[in-house]
Amino acid sequence: MNTWVQIPQNSDFTIHNIPFGIFSTNNTNMRVGIAIGDEVLDLVLAEKAGAFKNISFDINVLESKTLNDFISLGKEITSKIRETIQQELCNENSVLKNTDNVLILQNKVTMHLPVSVGDYTDFYSSIEHATNVGIMFRDPANALLPNWKHLPVGYHGRASSIIVSGEPVYRPKGQVLPPNHTTPIFQASARVDFELEMGFVIGKETKLGETINTEKAEEYIFGKVLFNDWSARDIQKWEYIPLGPFLAKNFGSSMSPWIVTMEALAPFKLQGPDQEPEVLPYLKCDGLKNYDINLEVLIQPENCEETVVSKSNFKYMYWNMSQQLAHHTINGCNVKVGDLMASGTISGKDDTSYGSMLELSWAGKHTVKLNEGGERKFIQDNDTVIMRGYCEKDGIRVGFGEVSSKLLPAL
Amino acid sequence: MNTWVQIPQNSDFTIHNIPFGIFSTNNTNMRVGIAIGDEVLDLVLAEKAGAFKNISFDINVLESKTLNDFISLGKEITSKIRETIQQELCNENSVLKNTDNVLILQNKVTMHLPVSVGDYTDFYSSIEHATNVGIMFRDPANALLPNWKHLPVGYHGRASSIIVSGEPVYRPKGQVLPPNHTTPIFQASARVDFELEMGFVIGKETKLGETINTEKAEEYIFGKVLFNDWSARDIQKWEYIPLGPFLAKNFGSSMSPWIVTMEALAPFKLQGPDQEPEVLPYLKCDGLKNYDINLEVLIQPENCEETVVSKSNFKYMYWNMSQQLAHHTINGCNVKVGDLMASGTISGKDDTSYGSMLELSWAGKHTVKLNEGGERKFIQDNDTVIMRGYCEKDGIRVGFGEVSSKLLPAL
Repeated sequence: MNTWVQIPQNSDFTIHNIPFGIFSTNNTNMRVGIAIGDEVLDLVLAEKAGAFKNISFDINVLESKTLNDFISLGKEITSKIRETIQQELCNENSVLKNTDNVLILQNKVTMHLPVSVGDYTDFYSSIEHATNVGIMFRDPANALLPNWKHLPVGYHGRASSIIVSGEPVYRPKGQVLPPNHTTPIFQASARVDFELEMGFVIGKETKLGETINTEKAEEYIFGKVLFNDWSARDIQKWEYIPLGPFLAKNFGSSMSPWIVTMEALAPFKLQGPDQEPEVLPYLKCDGLKNYDINLEVLIQPENCEETVVSKSNFKYMYWNMSQQLAHHTINGCNVKVGDLMASGTISGKDDTSYGSMLELSWAGKHTVKLNEGGERKFIQDNDTVIMRGYCEKDGIRVGFGEVSSKLLPAL
Repeated sequence: MNTWVQIPQNSDFTIHNIPFGIFSTNNTNMRVGIAIGDEVLDLVLAEKAGAFKNISFDINVLESKTLNDFISLGKEITSKIRETIQQELCNENSVLKNTDNVLILQNKVTMHLPVSVGDYTDFYSSIEHATNVGIMFRDPANALLPNWKHLPVGYHGRASSIIVSGEPVYRPKGQVLPPNHTTPIFQASARVDFELEMGFVIGKETKLGETINTEKAEEYIFGKVLFNDWSARDIQKWEYIPLGPFLAKNFGSSMSPWIVTMEALAPFKLQGPDQEPEVLPYLKCDGLKNYDINLEVLIQPENCEETVVSKSNFKYMYWNMSQQLAHHTINGCNVKVGDLMASGTISGKDDTSYGSMLELSWAGKHTVKLNEGGERKFIQDNDTVIMRGYCEKDGIRVGFGEVSSKLLPAL
């Protein structure tokens, strides 16, 4: 596919991608756009120019504060819109070529949270991450808990505090139990961490009582984002037994603004890890269900250059998205369009690929060196944490851009 | 206050109550109503009749599928609307007296989920319940975990599966680990349970980073409901370590349709239990923060009479709502209008007042006798679980009606 839009070398937003997001400018309200090269295509103006005249849908969904109504059109329509955009951007005689303002530079727009997240679920599906945590905090000889290889462990997170890339988070205050104390003290967390995750956005709802099987699961997934599940390790340690993480996680989670569709990711499918012991029938999958997505995490102290502190890959996931969704609904739990399901920390096989400072610093035992001369065990005030991700195969690149968020001092 | 509406003896919906809900009839769309005696007052028609002509607000919030926009008007307005309704219902010359269809019998209307719940948080704030669970599953000598008396333990639940009273739930299927097994099996849960809870609905939003202190917390609470947090004990036992309950809880939670306002509950305030050890400063409270609300749970097998299986009271709560909200936001977690925060199981001091079958049957060791001759350890297919609650003092009664939900066989 050759497009008439200029695409910079190594752009995440090639003609093969066409991810959806919500943007606004000084002159326009919030609306649906797609990213192409360094630009955003305004779908409201594209529609007015007649680009979608052969597709029958409610055009009001394009001038919206979230993608929820757009996604609710269903893949039959949204895939057709995406393909039409690809064709128009390759057609030298496209109506879009002479439509004023239909393409705007990305650095001239404001990106917004792409979906209104009804419910946010966080899984714990990287065996490398779960093993590292088990070695550090429990028993190196039995690092994984008995249920871990039988089901994709997950828990409910906070939807209200999910923010879009670019928005800051505040260092949380709370209760921590210092070593050798028997009663907690109140302080700003001293162990604020990132978690390198990816999220998927639900594209089709179910009713209470219904289940989704692994074969059909991807039909219920609209697309994927990068996700930084900010965590406060000291708060977590004191609060999480017996009902799980709460204030250690719900002070903020950062999401990339462009949702990359499952169609765009299809060429990058691969086989996941062997699962042994054998999983129960409702969790069995046929075909390729993992995805080869290169991931990296960078720390940028204020006014300094950024340092890559981890390089990982989504292909390592022990439990795939189809299994996660089959498990989530096996009890009849319903899902809604816009729900977000995150992977859990995505760690690779060695200490250059761990997806959290907890693992990179091995619970604060080591330091991580930064290019500008500093070092970190956890995240410091005014550090910006950046996560990037892309797929590449046979010269085709499809990327996610980035999720970037600065940690501000406690209020 | 004397009303011209006929109020049956022992009605929960006296002139002192005026709780808000969403109803529809065969002839009218979903809209805001209040309950009075055996009737519902249609606020859309009341407004058209001129009842609210002295209050300036967007009347579109009355013809809505949820109370969220109504609640977002703020207490200054919603309290004025509630007081005006009280006055009109006491005024023998009220315009409402001759307005057709403004009062409809409750048995002629359909009640709907009163709010769109953005996030649902479940606490674990009854010391009697937490102690019982600790004795059964951990160590009778150290039943409470170390953090329990220092913070109101809570976790995030699933918002999508919250349903209104009258809607059924399906027995969930999932993984359980039978005694003496080392690998799980897949089956319909054999230990479906209720949890007697109350929920409060957030009435005023905060921004990310903001906190709510205990003194102001009740300004952020619109009102309260009865809440049955359905649970599958066998699924919970296998899945919940280390990240908390997930599929054991998210197959359904039932909520009563009428939100009783904090103003209506104010006369029933009382002192909560002593908290020892002393709590951290951000959790300290002045004044009366507990509420004297009589609660009962009934089981009704299909086509049989109902049996009261528990009588408890909301006054037993160790952690009050103001402390829960102060804790929830101490890290800067934001809250939104319509968020629901539930108490956790409300157990009293003896075995006639436990708020779950888990405790009433002591993990299945005893049976609970029913009036119709049967007995239960947990809930059986086609049993209806009913929870009722009311306050009464100095001859004034303010009640919640009921939350009722039938357990249907697994699909």
